[in-house]
Amino acid sequence: SSRVLIRGLATQKKPNSLFARLDTFTDRHVGPDDKEVSYMLSQLGYESMDAFVSDTMPDKIRVASASVSNQTIPALSESELHKRARELAQLNKAYKSYIGMGYHNAVVPPVVLRNVMESPAWYTPYTPYQPEIAQGRLESLVNYQTMVMSMTAMDIANASLLDEATAAAEGMVLAFVSSMQKKRKFFVDRGVQPQTLAVLQTRAKGFGIELVIGDALSELKDEAALTDVCGVLVQYPNVNGEIADYSKLTEVIHASRGLLICATDLLALTMLKPPGEWGADVVVGNSGRFGVPAGYGGPHGAFFACTDKLKRKMPGRLIGKSRDVFGNPAYRLALQTREQHIRREKATSNICTSQALLANMAAMYAVYHGPVGLKRIAGKVHALAQVLKSAIEQRGYVVVNKQFFDTLTIDVTSVGKDADAVHAAAAAVGINLRRIDHKFVGVTLDESVSPEDLVALINVFNSVTGSPSVTLSNLTPIESLAIPSPLQRTSAFLPHPVFNSHHSETEMLRYIYHLQSKDLGLVHSMIPLGSCTMKLNSTSSMIPLTWPEFGSIHPFAPVDQVKGYLQVIKELEDDLCKITGFHACSLQPNSGAAGEYAGLSVIRAYQESQGEGHRDICLIPVSAHGTNPASAVMAGLKVIPVKSLADGSLDLEDLKTKAEKHKDNLAAFMITYPSTFGVFEDGVQDACKIIHDNGGQVYLDGANLNAQIGLTNPATCGGDVCHMNLHKTFAIPHGGGGPGVGPICVAEHLAPFLPGHPVVPVGGEKAISAVSAAQYGSASIHLISWAYIKMLGGNGLSESTRAALLNANYMAYRLKDHYSLRYKNRKGRVAHELLIDLAEFDKAAGLKVSDFAKRLQDYGFHPPTCSWPMSTCMLIEPTESETLDEVNRFCDAMIQIRKEAEDIIQGKQPKDNNVLKNAPHPVSVLTEDEWNRPYSRQTAVFPAPWLKEKKFWPTVGRIDDAYGDLNLVCDCPSVEETASA
Amino acid sequence: SSRVLIRGLATQKKPNSLFARLDTFTDRHVGPDDKEVSYMLSQLGYESMDAFVSDTMPDKIRVASASVSNQTIPALSESELHKRARELAQLNKAYKSYIGMGYHNAVVPPVVLRNVMESPAWYTPYTPYQPEIAQGRLESLVNYQTMVMSMTAMDIANASLLDEATAAAEGMVLAFVSSMQKKRKFFVDRGVQPQTLAVLQTRAKGFGIELVIGDALSELKDEAALTDVCGVLVQYPNVNGEIADYSKLTEVIHASRGLLICATDLLALTMLKPPGEWGADVVVGNSGRFGVPAGYGGPHGAFFACTDKLKRKMPGRLIGKSRDVFGNPAYRLALQTREQHIRREKATSNICTSQALLANMAAMYAVYHGPVGLKRIAGKVHALAQVLKSAIEQRGYVVVNKQFFDTLTIDVTSVGKDADAVHAAAAAVGINLRRIDHKFVGVTLDESVSPEDLVALINVFNSVTGSPSVTLSNLTPIESLAIPSPLQRTSAFLPHPVFNSHHSETEMLRYIYHLQSKDLGLVHSMIPLGSCTMKLNSTSSMIPLTWPEFGSIHPFAPVDQVKGYLQVIKELEDDLCKITGFHACSLQPNSGAAGEYAGLSVIRAYQESQGEGHRDICLIPVSAHGTNPASAVMAGLKVIPVKSLADGSLDLEDLKTKAEKHKDNLAAFMITYPSTFGVFEDGVQDACKIIHDNGGQVYLDGANLNAQIGLTNPATCGGDVCHMNLHKTFAIPHGGGGPGVGPICVAEHLAPFLPGHPVVPVGGEKAISAVSAAQYGSASIHLISWAYIKMLGGNGLSESTRAALLNANYMAYRLKDHYSLRYKNRKGRVAHELLIDLAEFDKAAGLKVSDFAKRLQDYGFHPPTCSWPMSTCMLIEPTESETLDEVNRFCDAMIQIRKEAEDIIQGKQPKDNNVLKNAPHPVSVLTEDEWNRPYSRQTAVFPAPWLKEKKFWPTVGRIDDAYGDLNLVCDCPSVEETASA
Ligand SMILES: Cc1ncc(COP(=O)(O)O)c(C=O)c1O
Ligand SMILES: Cc1ncc(COP(=O)(O)O)c(C=O)c1O
Ligand SMILES: O=C([O-])O
Repeated sequence: SSRVLIRGLATQKKPNSLFARLDTFTDRHVGPDDKEVSYMLSQLGYESMDAFVSDTMPDKIRVASASVSNQTIPALSESELHKRARELAQLNKAYKSYIGMGYHNAVVPPVVLRNVMESPAWYTPYTPYQPEIAQGRLESLVNYQTMVMSMTAMDIANASLLDEATAAAEGMVLAFVSSMQKKRKFFVDRGVQPQTLAVLQTRAKGFGIELVIGDALSELKDEAALTDVCGVLVQYPNVNGEIADYSKLTEVIHASRGLLICATDLLALTMLKPPGEWGADVVVGNSGRFGVPAGYGGPHGAFFACTDKLKRKMPGRLIGKSRDVFGNPAYRLALQTREQHIRREKATSNICTSQALLANMAAMYAVYHGPVGLKRIAGKVHALAQVLKSAIEQRGYVVVNKQFFDTLTIDVTSVGKDADAVHAAAAAVGINLRRIDHKFVGVTLDESVSPEDLVALINVFNSVTGSPSVTLSNLTPIESLAIPSPLQRTSAFLPHPVFNSHHSETEMLRYIYHLQSKDLGLVHSMIPLGSCTMKLNSTSSMIPLTWPEFGSIHPFAPVDQVKGYLQVIKELEDDLCKITGFHACSLQPNSGAAGEYAGLSVIRAYQESQGEGHRDICLIPVSAHGTNPASAVMAGLKVIPVKSLADGSLDLEDLKTKAEKHKDNLAAFMITYPSTFGVFEDGVQDACKIIHDNGGQVYLDGANLNAQIGLTNPATCGGDVCHMNLHKTFAIPHGGGGPGVGPICVAEHLAPFLPGHPVVPVGGEKAISAVSAAQYGSASIHLISWAYIKMLGGNGLSESTRAALLNANYMAYRLKDHYSLRYKNRKGRVAHELLIDLAEFDKAAGLKVSDFAKRLQDYGFHPPTCSWPMSTCMLIEPTESETLDEVNRFCDAMIQIRKEAEDIIQGKQPKDNNVLKNAPHPVSVLTEDEWNRPYSRQTAVFPAPWLKEKKFWPTVGRIDDAYGDLNLVCDCPSVEETASA
Repeated sequence: SSRVLIRGLATQKKPNSLFARLDTFTDRHVGPDDKEVSYMLSQLGYESMDAFVSDTMPDKIRVASASVSNQTIPALSESELHKRARELAQLNKAYKSYIGMGYHNAVVPPVVLRNVMESPAWYTPYTPYQPEIAQGRLESLVNYQTMVMSMTAMDIANASLLDEATAAAEGMVLAFVSSMQKKRKFFVDRGVQPQTLAVLQTRAKGFGIELVIGDALSELKDEAALTDVCGVLVQYPNVNGEIADYSKLTEVIHASRGLLICATDLLALTMLKPPGEWGADVVVGNSGRFGVPAGYGGPHGAFFACTDKLKRKMPGRLIGKSRDVFGNPAYRLALQTREQHIRREKATSNICTSQALLANMAAMYAVYHGPVGLKRIAGKVHALAQVLKSAIEQRGYVVVNKQFFDTLTIDVTSVGKDADAVHAAAAAVGINLRRIDHKFVGVTLDESVSPEDLVALINVFNSVTGSPSVTLSNLTPIESLAIPSPLQRTSAFLPHPVFNSHHSETEMLRYIYHLQSKDLGLVHSMIPLGSCTMKLNSTSSMIPLTWPEFGSIHPFAPVDQVKGYLQVIKELEDDLCKITGFHACSLQPNSGAAGEYAGLSVIRAYQESQGEGHRDICLIPVSAHGTNPASAVMAGLKVIPVKSLADGSLDLEDLKTKAEKHKDNLAAFMITYPSTFGVFEDGVQDACKIIHDNGGQVYLDGANLNAQIGLTNPATCGGDVCHMNLHKTFAIPHGGGGPGVGPICVAEHLAPFLPGHPVVPVGGEKAISAVSAAQYGSASIHLISWAYIKMLGGNGLSESTRAALLNANYMAYRLKDHYSLRYKNRKGRVAHELLIDLAEFDKAAGLKVSDFAKRLQDYGFHPPTCSWPMSTCMLIEPTESETLDEVNRFCDAMIQIRKEAEDIIQGKQPKDNNVLKNAPHPVSVLTEDEWNRPYSRQTAVFPAPWLKEKKFWPTVGRIDDAYGDLNLVCDCPSVEETASA
């Protein structure tokens, strides 16, 4: 076997100076040690790394090694990084924020903080595309869906979207699509969060929807007012804390065949009549206050729920229950046909990576507190708000909204003061209130508010009026509710056993561990998912994230309180510009797909500024990821596919023909580099030139940036804008399906158009409207990529790239005699991933890609990306973090499966009953008394010797997708179901 | 089934005030909710908890409920606790300490910090008494042993002791025992750490050993000097940094048949000739600098290694390799016959709980760095020390020790200054140096020292002489070594694959996760180990522990830098006094057994002060834990056992007879209450009175304090002193075999004798000498118990006691018709644990306790305590943290095993081939093609329905202890073994 017994000595190179730090991150991040590198190079026939890289990447796109080096990005050791992070943390001021506007000071149950958010078992897995090894987080996401369905009283809910604002935008588009794209107006109530409105504005533009902003209750009294209106968005309670009855409005909207979209708050819904009970069609919101740190804006899970009849149009991932081959219940991603990787330019949403980890935290919060606990929390928040109201009214303040859950809007002119005076008094004691204007001040209470906090808050108002301070003993609770009685919730919620069982910390901890035991993550073995770059997510980069100085900051806190964050953001933006060769950066987009959309929108705004706003053609290679065409459509572009040649490279002829043909209307070209086929194309610069020559802009999809850093860059390749997936290339862990960060970097001419924000000014001088709810997107996790870059330094970054290329090419070398490598460059080299084609096995013996994938599970591996970008292929990406031993182990498994396939081809095992078709084999198969398979039990589960010592077990047999889609069940078992199980 | 579907609602009681905190810890800590409590009470036939408690605990020992209530110990919510912990953390000043003396600023690899130290998978398991479900930490402890063996070049090493000082004391006793207790002198070199000397003084006293302190090299030149000397202790390098050649000395000692004990430093041994190569017989030391935070003194693992011929006398736990029934290698605790639970009063060591978690951290540190990394770290530390020396010598300072590894002793009078001036200059820039006297200052460097730190340090010395400051560029490395060449290490170390494989963070993480996957902890299911109180170890109580403000403090830092720690210690001592009813407390002992020894030593010191120093008889019930007689012997007492009656209670007649008989020499009586048989004896106060009437003192073993808190207390029961196991009753997690904290509380007359310390004054006015190396023992983990007590508050503490009693009694109720409950009180009640007797099954069908225990593993449970305190019994303790559902699940398993046993008794399964004898069943049995067992595969591994959804799997079959003891292998596989495996 190719097992390595003694390794890694050489990763610890002799320090170059007595004073050199020894805790250098590159040594720990990069898997192969020097000996392994030499060995792999020699196997590939190279004497040096440079020679290897020369054959792999076209010379003409290479950049000077100085551009990304320790000179341009100095390397900090792990302890230096922590010292620096501490310094920056100190620059953030932990004021107590009552700003609200959708963001709250969440109280994270410690058991969830430590064992979910801080646990690599939860944060390292990928999106559960392989459900047999992902039943844990699938169950938790079903808990999330169930929680949302139950709280909102809607028929179905998805497994999270990026944020409330984009969720509302998805709702708007759903309404538009439901009108067959005929009704072009969408009505937004004035009480909606300003950041939601801003995101709707951006999104409306791309779809050609006309936003109408007004007072829904007074302006939409009859059908006449709704002509051409596909939908209406209201906020419940609204940004000012008001609670309105939208039931009549809903009837009117329904009568005119429009949809009512309701943005709401899960905690308020413990006390408020849920939107599903008064007729809402779509319900969206932010689930962050369910135990997810505010983190200066994100990440957090947004929810999206709708009625049964809209379910097949619902954006995002949906987890459903199906059954495995043994008939046992099992979860998996449902209705995938809705998704853009299938629908491509017919998709109306580009959502791909979402917020799985944060959705899971919110679901765990609900599991931990249960309905009684949630009611208790909500009841207290509401009661405190009442005490506050009564206390300040005694001083003459007028609370404008008489009915509220947790938010008061206060007219301070009633005491003869300007709002600034109140904000100043608050700031003096470390308190932030919502700035509305000179007259009004907003206050939103939440779970974190202690009695002392409340007293301090009341005394801010007292100090402004010169009134004496109060103490706790001066305050008296108010028994009644400030919620209109028809709008009080009467229905029960969360009756399911899972929300009523795990309330002791011991039980909760065991539940968390039980679920995680079903999920394969990077803690177990390589996850060689092509295009996903599943590399080390280091502890050092994760630690600062959960420091309170970073976790507890409201996104709209005054800028002088967030100097630490702003410094991290600036440094990260600068470093990303150095890495991409571009001029400016926006960290606002929350995912790769959101980056695509933002980048294309920026291009369009630029073209508009040049009087070229009519340009609306987007050329996209057939090999592109499904989010590309979906994003293009969302940006108002028409997609025209470009062919590939037999060697996998872009058909430059076809590109040229189409570019010239659409010369007058050519807006953009989207290209992934190296291509999704896993090769560096020679002609990338030529392709970009063709586009520029024809008046278009080049969008570079940076999903594969891990193959470029320090050796080439998107600007040199010829792009004008690119997005990065920080959750791939820059080591933000995938979280089982998110969070993500998809910043864009742009050339100088595009910089003025980078996205802005309605509350906190960011972006270019001619900024497009916001693409995310928070001005810097998922700010807290920027820390991870910042730390990653700072710890590797420029040299470590490019060393990582080289190792990633080498690992992939060594893998291609080991597999080439056993599988057909679909594409390679003229020197026989792949890029950082490789595409193998399994079509021959289907022909020979009916063996599909999924049969190989499921069999890999039996070997303890997460399968590579399957059937994408070509249906008969697997796309394999080892990354730089895997050692030679692990790479070899994976290749050994693949080669052995190839032999197993040969047996089937040779007829030694029947085509319908064999070790591949029956894979994966969970433990339960071993307990069958009769063994009716043409291979032994040993062969089934321990096909390789290492598995006896270490094996990750699938917990269910192969899952029946079709059954699940036909019998769609997306919530968790009820009491009755559990009892009868 | 008795499965509960909806539970826990009632744990969330309606808050009693609007302002009440909702994150009350009692709700999360106590398993059964109100409904479950009512249900259990009703099953037992009670209408109220009070009625139940009245029947369970004798009225006469009850204390007023006010004594432990929220009035005396106010409850903080979880968030309030964190706020308070933050405030206290701020009171500690994080000076940079170069004090040395055995304590260093360890650099914890982040991946180990987060995934071992902060992981409940590692910190919650018990000592690996059930090896089939503990192979992970057993392997890691073997790594620890191997690391120690390899670094010291000794034949064998144990799996940790409490600290370097007690390890040295164990070495001394081993030398004494090796001389057949004939040579009563033990020579201690002056260069030994002062705290080690202090602990030796205490220990020597009990054994009647005479300590001789002197200069070993000059005073022990020939055999004549060694008459009556059983052993010699040297420190290598010594406390002042000197490195001496002890090879000649060792020859002389060996010639006189004495033992050479060497205290040493693992990092220094990367460069120094290891003691095993120059003849040491025993090598001890602190492994804390291998990645364990200083934590103001502990915890950390101490190591103990010796020659092959001493191995059967070696104290502490030893992990050895054996094989399972299938012939596969498997680890387990070896040579248990050495331990005090077998040898009782013949034992010469009482070590039981040791430092498994910290030993595992140190082992992981070695795995992560490997030999090359360790050499690199040591080389840098040494080189920095050389630069320091050269820099200060240039200013006229005289470094006294010319040869050193990391420690310099500096004569500051050479520059005409007093040491105080140097300390003042250091303190002014946040630096601590070692205070020796007015002439000398000590400096010890370590891995954490950055170039900037070194410059600052040098400039302290420069400022004292008024010399200009230096910068980094002024410093030049020195190529030579300051280690005498005959003492330079030439041999390799750590060549084993495990230390040469896991050097990337990804690999390290996977190794950690792989090992933990083999170990059952509280994260999986109940661990109902009687006498061990395996309750919830809450996240909230664990979090502050790893804050740098608590982790990075040197134990001998000046007191004005540790005000936060001192406040925690004071509050914890006060609360423990309230809980026990005693007057004063010492937190110094690092385990329960160490507490016993400390308590008895205090009694003896008191009696001596009364002119009663001759009292040397200790009465101990036969049911006592083995550490009791062992500790008594160590304190110089003669043990006389006291009988039990048939109902399990103490034979008061026998006690009286013996007390009266030994009236003149009666020193003490040790009693465990409730008894180790699991009942509250009515006569406890009578028993204590008998002892007092006969001039003795009462030592109460507080291992079972969980049954007392808030309802009774040791003082009321009649004791004079008790120890507590904070790692049982007060929720310090057991760490897989430690750390522990065994503080003692004493009545007023004993308070003056509480242990002192030679470096930092603590204890009573007439303090006995130290019992631990650090003045407050394992200070950092005091935080856990402090938090536990503060969060529960007095009410929560007594509610916990009640729930623990109820859970145990409900369990007794459910099991009573199936198993014979050995003891109960007159009302039919047990205490917080129950003893069931399995003798009948042995008689009927040859089924032993271990067969039941191993079968419980198949049900996913950790077995209860086996064959202790009676060989045919199981002692079961559920604790308050388990819910009714979990308690029922365990009872269901026990009852079903009872049925399985019945089948065997009835002859339905052969006596030698049945589901109990063959247990546990690892997955591998299922892969056998032929199934030659009289039960199905299903029955083997899924005997209960819940197991299909959730099961913890043993990873090996039943282990052969005898084979392992006969073929003792205690280190990990070599390259050759791995290659041929
Ligand atoms: C090539 C490519 N482009 C875009 C995306 C979309 O990124 P995200 O999932 O972050 O939205 C992906 C994601 O896998 C991708 O592989
Ligand atoms: C009754 C009793 N006494 C003393 C001890 C010794 O405590 P430790 O293991 O902390 O030394 C134990 C440990 O289990 C015990 O059960
Ligand atoms: O560790 C025990 O002896 O229980």
